[in-house]
Amino acid sequence: MKAYQELEARHRRLSALGNAAGILNWDQATIMPSGSAPARAELVAELDVLAHEMTTSSEMADLLAEVQSDGTNLSEWQHANVREMNHMFKHATAITADLVKRSALAESDAEMTWREARKNNDFKSLAPKLDVIFEIKREEAAVKAEAFGVSPYEALLDQFDPGRMEHSVDVLFDDLADFLPGFLQQVLDQQAGNPDLLIPPGPHAEEDQFKLGKRVMEVIGFPFERGRLDVSHHPFSGGADGDRRITTRYDKDDFTKSLMAVIHETGHALYQDGLPDEWRGQPVGNHRGMTIHESQSLLLEMQAARTDEFIRCLSPIVREELKGSGPAWEEDNLIKIYRKVERGLIRVDADEVTYPLHVLLRYRLEKAILSGDIKTMDLSGAWNDMMEQLIGIRPPDDADGVMQDVHWPAGIFGYFPTYSLGALTAAQLFQSAKKADPGILPALGEGDFSPLFAWLNPNIREKGCLHSPDELIEKATGEPLSTDAFKTHVKARYLAS
Amino acid sequence: MKAYQELEARHRRLSALGNAAGILNWDQATIMPSGSAPARAELVAELDVLAHEMTTSSEMADLLAEVQSDGTNLSEWQHANVREMNHMFKHATAITADLVKRSALAESDAEMTWREARKNNDFKSLAPKLDVIFEIKREEAAVKAEAFGVSPYEALLDQFDPGRMEHSVDVLFDDLADFLPGFLQQVLDQQAGNPDLLIPPGPHAEEDQFKLGKRVMEVIGFPFERGRLDVSHHPFSGGADGDRRITTRYDKDDFTKSLMAVIHETGHALYQDGLPDEWRGQPVGNHRGMTIHESQSLLLEMQAARTDEFIRCLSPIVREELKGSGPAWEEDNLIKIYRKVERGLIRVDADEVTYPLHVLLRYRLEKAILSGDIKTMDLSGAWNDMMEQLIGIRPPDDADGVMQDVHWPAGIFGYFPTYSLGALTAAQLFQSAKKADPGILPALGEGDFSPLFAWLNPNIREKGCLHSPDELIEKATGEPLSTDAFKTHVKARYLAS
Repeated sequence: MKAYQELEARHRRLSALGNAAGILNWDQATIMPSGSAPARAELVAELDVLAHEMTTSSEMADLLAEVQSDGTNLSEWQHANVREMNHMFKHATAITADLVKRSALAESDAEMTWREARKNNDFKSLAPKLDVIFEIKREEAAVKAEAFGVSPYEALLDQFDPGRMEHSVDVLFDDLADFLPGFLQQVLDQQAGNPDLLIPPGPHAEEDQFKLGKRVMEVIGFPFERGRLDVSHHPFSGGADGDRRITTRYDKDDFTKSLMAVIHETGHALYQDGLPDEWRGQPVGNHRGMTIHESQSLLLEMQAARTDEFIRCLSPIVREELKGSGPAWEEDNLIKIYRKVERGLIRVDADEVTYPLHVLLRYRLEKAILSGDIKTMDLSGAWNDMMEQLIGIRPPDDADGVMQDVHWPAGIFGYFPTYSLGALTAAQLFQSAKKADPGILPALGEGDFSPLFAWLNPNIREKGCLHSPDELIEKATGEPLSTDAFKTHVKARYLAS
Repeated sequence: MKAYQELEARHRRLSALGNAAGILNWDQATIMPSGSAPARAELVAELDVLAHEMTTSSEMADLLAEVQSDGTNLSEWQHANVREMNHMFKHATAITADLVKRSALAESDAEMTWREARKNNDFKSLAPKLDVIFEIKREEAAVKAEAFGVSPYEALLDQFDPGRMEHSVDVLFDDLADFLPGFLQQVLDQQAGNPDLLIPPGPHAEEDQFKLGKRVMEVIGFPFERGRLDVSHHPFSGGADGDRRITTRYDKDDFTKSLMAVIHETGHALYQDGLPDEWRGQPVGNHRGMTIHESQSLLLEMQAARTDEFIRCLSPIVREELKGSGPAWEEDNLIKIYRKVERGLIRVDADEVTYPLHVLLRYRLEKAILSGDIKTMDLSGAWNDMMEQLIGIRPPDDADGVMQDVHWPAGIFGYFPTYSLGALTAAQLFQSAKKADPGILPALGEGDFSPLFAWLNPNIREKGCLHSPDELIEKATGEPLSTDAFKTHVKARYLAS
């Protein structure tokens, strides 16, 4: 037990470093003076090195080995904690310090180039930088695949969604690829018959939108006594344990995006806040990877908040806070706004029907990049062809095509699928929750999320990393993750009315 | 050289932890949600433990021993860096982890009791908690005195003002004790003949005071591209390397205190910002203790900013930003406001003539506490007697007497003298600077601090910890620290006109 206790102490310290990094990251995105960026970059890099050293130290290796041999007396949670410690250790030690350093340099170089290249629609200037990133990622994936006994793509995916198998993603995504293009056309045909959307006329002052966002967060149950809502360039959920901070950005002419971003980030924040308190600071008390995380934001944003019930509860609040009146502000129009489906170029602006197609495209391309089946210079054409095939429109340029996301220049591979795996999970969880408690939907109509959370807390949030993501989903819903609930959901929402 | 390089790397990491703590501390004092306090306390405690472990590790001890034996090739700065590393190591290893933990618990307990006790003017409830603190401090001082070969008080003072000797403080403070009470009476007699002060009528809106403070900081040269001005309960200068953040608080009826607090904190911030860039993250690149730090804030606030020259430059800015006009806003009245001397009870509100007497009282009492010459229950009476003897007024209660400062409940012993040693240093530095460049005063009249800083940068800021505090003062001014410049300064300012 002594080795186990020592491991816990070391991870408490690692977790404190992670929490400090969370506040620093929030600070940097919201209020840090811009001229402090170089000093901050150095500071964060030193903390990263420190955390890496602490994770991979020989003492840590010895303790893990020791606890492995005398671990028979561990409780179920302690046992899972050691499994998660090993997972962290495995990823941190698989690659050399040299590769870590080369990655960091190449990513920072490529990301800076990407900003300019995207602005100037100049993929040619980005391509050689991407080549370097891709080569490094192939090296990292190969080394980890060898060490973990999985496929190279799985080795990368495993950082974000532990234990996820490439084959199972293929099955789910191929199913969506079969279903969605035809379904999309059906929805568009039906919506073409609708009268034009009314746009609630702006400008909507930032203070009013802030108050609206805050009030909706309060309705949902965001703990403002230990949390904040602020502004940043991209919305995110961050902060630290016991100190949840989300951000949004405001468009004076369109309040609807910021409002849903706030609900989305609230979902992330409430998940983090609801993780098991008794395991704070330990790996088993962490969030269960990005698929589950995204399911928690989408469960609020896409599943709960876009129900007829909640939008009917939401619309008088919107009218009051933004001082709006007239047909554009009525609940029926608000429902239509939040159900609008279209063939768009940009993933982050996509509706829930087309979104998985954007993800599918990236998933297929990054697998081809990793396997070397596609050359960097052919990436732009491949992107445009696949966009046309899946979503039915062709990007007029690379800025709104292959260069729209920061992920690849930033060296983030294996992350994209979790967006849509999260959407599938959210649909499946919401279906099960409603089945378990038929009071959930009527309560949403009253702005009462507590029945939903009464199901979510024991089934997801309080489970931390006790189970694998797939086990967690299966235990909560009684079935393995599939596309069924998602398909049922979009059919009901987009074709029935 | 390898051991030395490894020491530098370890200290870079320690410094990153310190910088992270700086941002966390600023965050906590300015914008952290209050309900996040317990989680933040745990986070900070874990980082403290981590930093202590890193500072005292056996590897650190081995590296310091190794570099000691092969250190002949070190440059002057590297040599000083190793000296500072040893100083940190010495303080961190002198006391046991058990004592560190007992201190932290007792201090947090006493500080919480102090808040209530002060509010209720109830010294009796605080006394037993202080007893515990005093006992721990006596233990700490004894252990360190033994280890360092200095007196127990010196062992504590050495944390804040390295190398400062008790005897030299006695000499300086006894001199002030002889001089100030009589001088104070002279000043009061002279000011009694003045017409009543005019008070610029408020209320002064917070936004206006913020703009005024910001503008004055810009005049002085505060680097807002890598710094901020915010609000907190107590003004402070904090942040991190390359990210200087100061705070103030606003009184709607009196702008003068906040304005001088801003100038004071700007002095601290510019000192930190001006430390040698090539030694950032290394002990030798740190500030040179609290006497020098306080000299840098007082050099701006008390020496430069209260000159006739600068106040004449300041007053039109004040009128403009606060939209004031009339005799109360004229420069002659502003000068009188900033020269007002009185016998007051509260240290933090004291003018520069009475301030050292407040410090002297605390210095004498904390030495008596440490030596056991005074009992805790007799502290209140001793405080009041000494207050009457030194400043000529007797506190009506303990809330405005012995309980006014957080230092003792917080376990901070040996810090108080640095306030007045800093005031003496500021006077001596300003005198030398003016002598070296007669253009400094006329430039202040134009709101131009660059001649002053042109002297300050090479003589103080860029020296970091290359020399001891006393050597630094002597090299900069040609003389050891004395009371001469301070006495000359207050005589010229308060009796001449």
